[in-house]
Amino acid sequence: MAEPTDKTRASRRKFLVSAAGLSVTSLAAAGAAARPSFADNSKNLPPNVADWTRTLGEGVGVRAYGNPSKYEKDAIRRTVPWLTATPESSVSFTPLHALDGIITPSGLCFERHHSGIAEVDPADYRLMLHGLVDKPLIFTLDELKRLPRVNKIYFLECAANSGMEWRGAQLNGAQYTHGMVHCVQYTGVPLKLLLEQAGVKSNAKWIMAEGGDAAAMNRSIPLAKAIDDCLVAYRMNGEMLRPEQGYPVRLVVPGWEGNVWVKWLRRLKIGDQPWYTREETSKYTDLLEDGKARQFTFVMDAKSVITSPSPQASVKQKGFNVISGLAWSGRGKISRVDVSLDGGRNWRTARIDGPVFDKACVRFYYEFDWNGEELLLQSRAMDDTGYVQPSKEALRKIRGVNSIYHNNGIQTWALKANGEVENVEVG
Amino acid sequence: MAEPTDKTRASRRKFLVSAAGLSVTSLAAAGAAARPSFADNSKNLPPNVADWTRTLGEGVGVRAYGNPSKYEKDAIRRTVPWLTATPESSVSFTPLHALDGIITPSGLCFERHHSGIAEVDPADYRLMLHGLVDKPLIFTLDELKRLPRVNKIYFLECAANSGMEWRGAQLNGAQYTHGMVHCVQYTGVPLKLLLEQAGVKSNAKWIMAEGGDAAAMNRSIPLAKAIDDCLVAYRMNGEMLRPEQGYPVRLVVPGWEGNVWVKWLRRLKIGDQPWYTREETSKYTDLLEDGKARQFTFVMDAKSVITSPSPQASVKQKGFNVISGLAWSGRGKISRVDVSLDGGRNWRTARIDGPVFDKACVRFYYEFDWNGEELLLQSRAMDDTGYVQPSKEALRKIRGVNSIYHNNGIQTWALKANGEVENVEVG
Repeated sequence: MAEPTDKTRASRRKFLVSAAGLSVTSLAAAGAAARPSFADNSKNLPPNVADWTRTLGEGVGVRAYGNPSKYEKDAIRRTVPWLTATPESSVSFTPLHALDGIITPSGLCFERHHSGIAEVDPADYRLMLHGLVDKPLIFTLDELKRLPRVNKIYFLECAANSGMEWRGAQLNGAQYTHGMVHCVQYTGVPLKLLLEQAGVKSNAKWIMAEGGDAAAMNRSIPLAKAIDDCLVAYRMNGEMLRPEQGYPVRLVVPGWEGNVWVKWLRRLKIGDQPWYTREETSKYTDLLEDGKARQFTFVMDAKSVITSPSPQASVKQKGFNVISGLAWSGRGKISRVDVSLDGGRNWRTARIDGPVFDKACVRFYYEFDWNGEELLLQSRAMDDTGYVQPSKEALRKIRGVNSIYHNNGIQTWALKANGEVENVEVG
Repeated sequence: MAEPTDKTRASRRKFLVSAAGLSVTSLAAAGAAARPSFADNSKNLPPNVADWTRTLGEGVGVRAYGNPSKYEKDAIRRTVPWLTATPESSVSFTPLHALDGIITPSGLCFERHHSGIAEVDPADYRLMLHGLVDKPLIFTLDELKRLPRVNKIYFLECAANSGMEWRGAQLNGAQYTHGMVHCVQYTGVPLKLLLEQAGVKSNAKWIMAEGGDAAAMNRSIPLAKAIDDCLVAYRMNGEMLRPEQGYPVRLVVPGWEGNVWVKWLRRLKIGDQPWYTREETSKYTDLLEDGKARQFTFVMDAKSVITSPSPQASVKQKGFNVISGLAWSGRGKISRVDVSLDGGRNWRTARIDGPVFDKACVRFYYEFDWNGEELLLQSRAMDDTGYVQPSKEALRKIRGVNSIYHNNGIQTWALKANGEVENVEVG
């Protein structure tokens, strides 16, 4: 911002006086008295402000599909180029530090692909349902859209979210440590309805979902889960799925790790045992200290993260401040979130605000007065099964540090005296 | 779509056989038997389909902020150029026919401006609160962000939504007849908190909200409403407000007509009576038959519309079909929605699916088997105050046809034998 000049100050003062019929000086002085926790109120006088009302704005119809303000350059997905060999098998992260509420804008939902974004013409789209069924079926997109549908708000978290943090604090920002999670409203057909149409044979126990991407990404899912709450979804946040999220159809597997939510879904096969595909043998298993690996660890346990303050969202002023964060559980509803300012020695209950849905993100807040001292900020989530989010240390004691999956340990942010925030590890 | 050739058919057949280990013929025949209400199942064989898995897709990081699929050309805001003298004082409409669920994507929220979209640099943003208060205040955006905030899902409807329909069926599409409504999650500071900081004087009764656009759009609002549930909001659907929606700050006035939700909010003044501004005298009043005008008719009464089938969303096939629509009420929660197939003679209760919030859109469905006969589709909403959405005729009996505001009458779509849908009026 440019240094204020007498001329711009005078111009601004004149504008405010004209608009409000009041002297700016008295306003500023009074304002400072009313909010003792705010810093010098004279900063409220903008040094170089345009008189907005003197400019006729852009008309309607210029943007048939709108985009964010040009000033919101920080609210973008970001990649970590060194993380994978190619961008087609890589990740982009949701800017959690730049968001609030529980809905993730579709344009900011993280990406994780195994062979890039499949391009599927909806007119050519087909979903095949076969295997241990009485009547194999093929559905067009129009046919799926003619079936009864439901609307559900769910979180989706990649199994590898926070994976780099197993061996200690690595990545400097909630976007990178926790940004492989998003939460949107899906519209889709309960998978149960499709299975009923096909008629599942009595010996059926598993279902394989296969994507139309170049990886033909596939995973085995217990049939009980498919019948319980899985959706064959074609919309997110009201509109059709985005290409990065499986356009035109993806599987929704509430509360379970993201890789089983198969995108560009083209095939569902019913069987009596898992298929032991590449993505459930060489990948997406949790290698323990003794060399054995946990397999089919589908559920994402309760987890939370403070999104602000965080390394990408520093504290600008002493005084009244808001800690804001997200919590979610693959086992049910979040029942409570606690916040600690001293690295887990003392905990206070956070305020959950906004709706609390089963297997969805919830938003929590903790308001506090910051006197400038260094703090160790943490949050821990609890769900309605009684589960409490553990420390990273507790997880490591049981699982070691070989795995990169299912790290739901408590995250610590160090708030420095200058307001900056660092990713740290506490004992 | 290109005419199928033997070559593409053979190629596709090979792909399906390879993928499923099954003969296409048996799948198609079996599929037809399983879904008697669907038409000839052989149409399920796409004539010219790409083998998606043979192409490596686009990698991550190409789109830092994502956009819809290139195939979704219909899901855009549309304007009616002849409606207003200039695009700066015009409207673009939400494509309701192309959406589902209750969340409107931010990029598709309708626009209505009085002097175009104000461009406000958030660093220069100021909100002034003054008038009958103990301590006038000026807030920067950072200061607003440091105050306690809440997350609420609300509908916003322009008072003139469906206004063209007062004199009979005019516009051919739900986007045009009802597209001045949207529903998003807002994050903002309860206005009550700001008023408490300023200290409202005992004779205060009204509050004026003024925008930073070239119209300096302003409206008077009873103080009781401001204290009850108004928000000074800076986010929608998690991200910062879009420029078209008042970036960086707008007033949220739950359940009340859209024009009081002042965008680019720069000033709030407390007084003991309304200001009788241009937008509450010459505009946004309801002119009755006797020449008198109803003023300060803020609340948007219960309303609903079938979004599909509708003139922009025809029925493609006989058999099983889903009627889908939206309902909302400015007085509380939607308690029930009924659907009629015969122009209001018989009513059946629709299925409401997804969350039901106070003063928010709800999604309703009615599944039915269509035998090809002509139907007159209607919906009527009820809210938890007992209010029932009236017919247009009932509204006209009381208010005449002079006004363009607050038309919440029942909408009728005529479904023709060929599956096309028209906007019609029934007696």
